[in-house]
Amino acid sequence: MHCLVIHGGAGALPRSEMTPVRAEEFHAGLREALLCGHRVLAAGGTSMDAVEAAVVSMEDNPLFNAGKGGSFTREGKNELEASIMEGHTGRVGTAMVLRSTRNPVRLARLVMERTPHVALSGRAADAYAAAQGLPQEQPEYFWTRPRYEAMLKLRGTEHTALSEDVVINAAPLTPDTSNTVGAVALDEHGHLAASTSSGGTSNKYPGRVGQACIPGAGVFAKDATCAVSCTGQGEAFMRGVIAYDVSAMMEYGRLDLRTASERAIHSRLPGHGGLIAIDASGNLATPFNSAGMFRGWIKSAGVVHTAIYEEVRAWNV
Amino acid sequence: MHCLVIHGGAGALPRSEMTPVRAEEFHAGLREALLCGHRVLAAGGTSMDAVEAAVVSMEDNPLFNAGKGGSFTREGKNELEASIMEGHTGRVGTAMVLRSTRNPVRLARLVMERTPHVALSGRAADAYAAAQGLPQEQPEYFWTRPRYEAMLKLRGTEHTALSEDVVINAAPLTPDTSNTVGAVALDEHGHLAASTSSGGTSNKYPGRVGQACIPGAGVFAKDATCAVSCTGQGEAFMRGVIAYDVSAMMEYGRLDLRTASERAIHSRLPGHGGLIAIDASGNLATPFNSAGMFRGWIKSAGVVHTAIYEEVRAWNV
Repeated sequence: MHCLVIHGGAGALPRSEMTPVRAEEFHAGLREALLCGHRVLAAGGTSMDAVEAAVVSMEDNPLFNAGKGGSFTREGKNELEASIMEGHTGRVGTAMVLRSTRNPVRLARLVMERTPHVALSGRAADAYAAAQGLPQEQPEYFWTRPRYEAMLKLRGTEHTALSEDVVINAAPLTPDTSNTVGAVALDEHGHLAASTSSGGTSNKYPGRVGQACIPGAGVFAKDATCAVSCTGQGEAFMRGVIAYDVSAMMEYGRLDLRTASERAIHSRLPGHGGLIAIDASGNLATPFNSAGMFRGWIKSAGVVHTAIYEEVRAWNV
Repeated sequence: MHCLVIHGGAGALPRSEMTPVRAEEFHAGLREALLCGHRVLAAGGTSMDAVEAAVVSMEDNPLFNAGKGGSFTREGKNELEASIMEGHTGRVGTAMVLRSTRNPVRLARLVMERTPHVALSGRAADAYAAAQGLPQEQPEYFWTRPRYEAMLKLRGTEHTALSEDVVINAAPLTPDTSNTVGAVALDEHGHLAASTSSGGTSNKYPGRVGQACIPGAGVFAKDATCAVSCTGQGEAFMRGVIAYDVSAMMEYGRLDLRTASERAIHSRLPGHGGLIAIDASGNLATPFNSAGMFRGWIKSAGVVHTAIYEEVRAWNV
């Protein structure tokens, strides 16, 4: 048995701006990411390789606020972050405040596998990625009009926003409607993995670090409990140590995956957002307290499920 | 009732190199930091102000690996980090990869109080600190011979080390025997706070981020459970989300402070180090699985306790 669950961000996502055409673009983006990870799992690959493949797909897709298409700091820069964690070893790698590494999740994995560290930050992290052969990009690669305009609307204020919230004030033709991405997976070997990647909030301070690169806050994986990836107001996830909280409620509080996941979002999170979670039995949960969350899952049977609000679409692979 | 507990790092600390003169310097440094925080608490001040005062004292003391006297990256730079968390609000602030801010803990607090964020990193964080009026220093201020020589001994290898471990190979006259610092406190209002500050490991990669600035890993505070500050192999604390784990074992597993703290260090931590913890009843715990941990505490009665190995010294204020 294997299973992959992904998210492409949680937030306000006003239905008035989610046109059928736009919604279809997101469903297609989620489907593509699910298939990238599913191919790995169906071939007997590891959950680590599957979550990395799914996240890379969303990092490369400018619809999502991660990698290409990330949000902007108030200085007009893209600063990206990502993490990946391995459930059977407890190893984790993260990278943050990246400006040139095309796929932050790939750097997070190299930090885990090739350095004595868990986390690298800033230009030194980009330089390490380059030295390890990871593709580097110019700022233009990451730049997208909707994200840039979303930041401009907020610049000069102390307000920062999830890209989903910014949509409320965004130009109607180019709503900025996606956020952090992530994936959790169970592979045929019975191992769990989790990964999260983000461009952060619009109009954030330069140097701001969010939950997507913080083990325990935005990502966690442990075979005995669960794998979790979070999305939403990063600061709230960091205060609540939400990803690890799901695992702790399962381990110490004897809650099942679904109950722990829903309690984390609906009772513990001091803000708004959502998470995806999976356990070693293949149970999954996708709770959110925001209006919507881009999400999807695919199990061994090969049926692709994607959703934005309540409605779930299904395709046979 | 009020109480303050501090640490000045955990590690190998070989007794052969801990001369009576050197030990006395550390006891004096711990005593000074305890008195700085105790004065705040005895005057009815907050636990936040007390842990900040104690940590500032150790950041300013070159004996300790935080602020002035921090460890060096393999490129020969000091990159500092710190965090502070407020138990009755769940607010937290952190700053990392700092090169010029004299007192990282003060910046962590400003991030918490004056920005919409939890964490700021790198040169942008130093620039924010400067703009907010926090004193900035040249690299020479942070430079100390023992720490620099400790890094030189490891440079060219993939080995990084706690400053306590480096002491084994250090020049006998200038052992490099201290690590991360931290403080936890309970104030007369019944509120908890925690703070951690560090120069990181010797010979670390540039841009490396450690547990001292990661909420859940190296710092956590919640009035209903505990306040925790960790020291040791930062990567192990990040993988185990150790600071929050103490709180989770108390909340979900119904363990008392001492049992949860000892279990976190002796059963959960995938490496070595220690932590200090306090609860709202004034119970405290200082477990470590390393040879020693610089530590101390002072309660309302005003007796200063300090220790490196087993022996505890007491002074009346």
